[in-house]
Amino acid sequence: MTDKLVRKHDGAFHWEGVEVLAYKQEGSAPFKDVTRQVLFDDPSLAAQLRYFEVAPGGWTTLERHEHVHNVMVIRGRGRCLVGDRAWDLARNDLVSVPPMTWHQFHAAPDEPLGFLCLVNRERDRPQLPSPADAPAISAPLDD
Amino acid sequence: MTDKLVRKHDGAFHWEGVEVLAYKQEGSAPFKDVTRQVLFDDPSLAAQLRYFEVAPGGWTTLERHEHVHNVMVIRGRGRCLVGDRAWDLARNDLVSVPPMTWHQFHAAPDEPLGFLCLVNRERDRPQLPSPADAPAISAPLDD
Repeated sequence: MTDKLVRKHDGAFHWEGVEVLAYKQEGSAPFKDVTRQVLFDDPSLAAQLRYFEVAPGGWTTLERHEHVHNVMVIRGRGRCLVGDRAWDLARNDLVSVPPMTWHQFHAAPDEPLGFLCLVNRERDRPQLPSPADAPAISAPLDD
Repeated sequence: MTDKLVRKHDGAFHWEGVEVLAYKQEGSAPFKDVTRQVLFDDPSLAAQLRYFEVAPGGWTTLERHEHVHNVMVIRGRGRCLVGDRAWDLARNDLVSVPPMTWHQFHAAPDEPLGFLCLVNRERDRPQLPSPADAPAISAPLDD
């Protein structure tokens, strides 16, 4: 992070003083082609704003947790699972992930999906489905 | 607000189930041509995400407060004052407003300025400068 008051966007979803991070530790959970950037992490704010980018054809981990996610798409197109339904996503769409609700984000085959995700600074760790249960949980994404 | 998990953007900075509100009560503070929409206000999240839109030539109130603002531009162009400096703003730029720091957002003459603003749910009320002090505080915006 940086102490700069204004951090300019470079036109390609990178920002002054904001590092592009691994989404998660490799091998810790299934995912494909996702990066993470922490845009705001002010200790006096009770929430953090992160930017996740899923490359074309990539997807985030299928997971659930007690903490809620508030999501806004700011780049590209894709699809999300929230609970037992899937939705197409485009720029500026809003997604609310309630507590303990399975969710996953997929980029379109030919476009990235970039989204802001607002979370409380204090939050629980995600839970993963068993490999046997995962296909049924994510089935609505295939419809 | 709405219980919908996914709220689609209509292509013109309005969202399903999100009301366009007055920025502030008329006469409560000086401002010009600003609207407010509350995008996320989940009681289990400690912060709210709002969308403010300043019409071409408009401006927000010059003010300061203890709570911090985390801002991301998502539409148009403009200029902001934070403390004793001003910056040009374009889409996806990030602005941090520290505690008790004078700040103001102006749209460009020919374009709106639309921005997300992240704040704690619990926050203090803004303070205004005296009419005599305001011109000196906002002077960097004229450079």
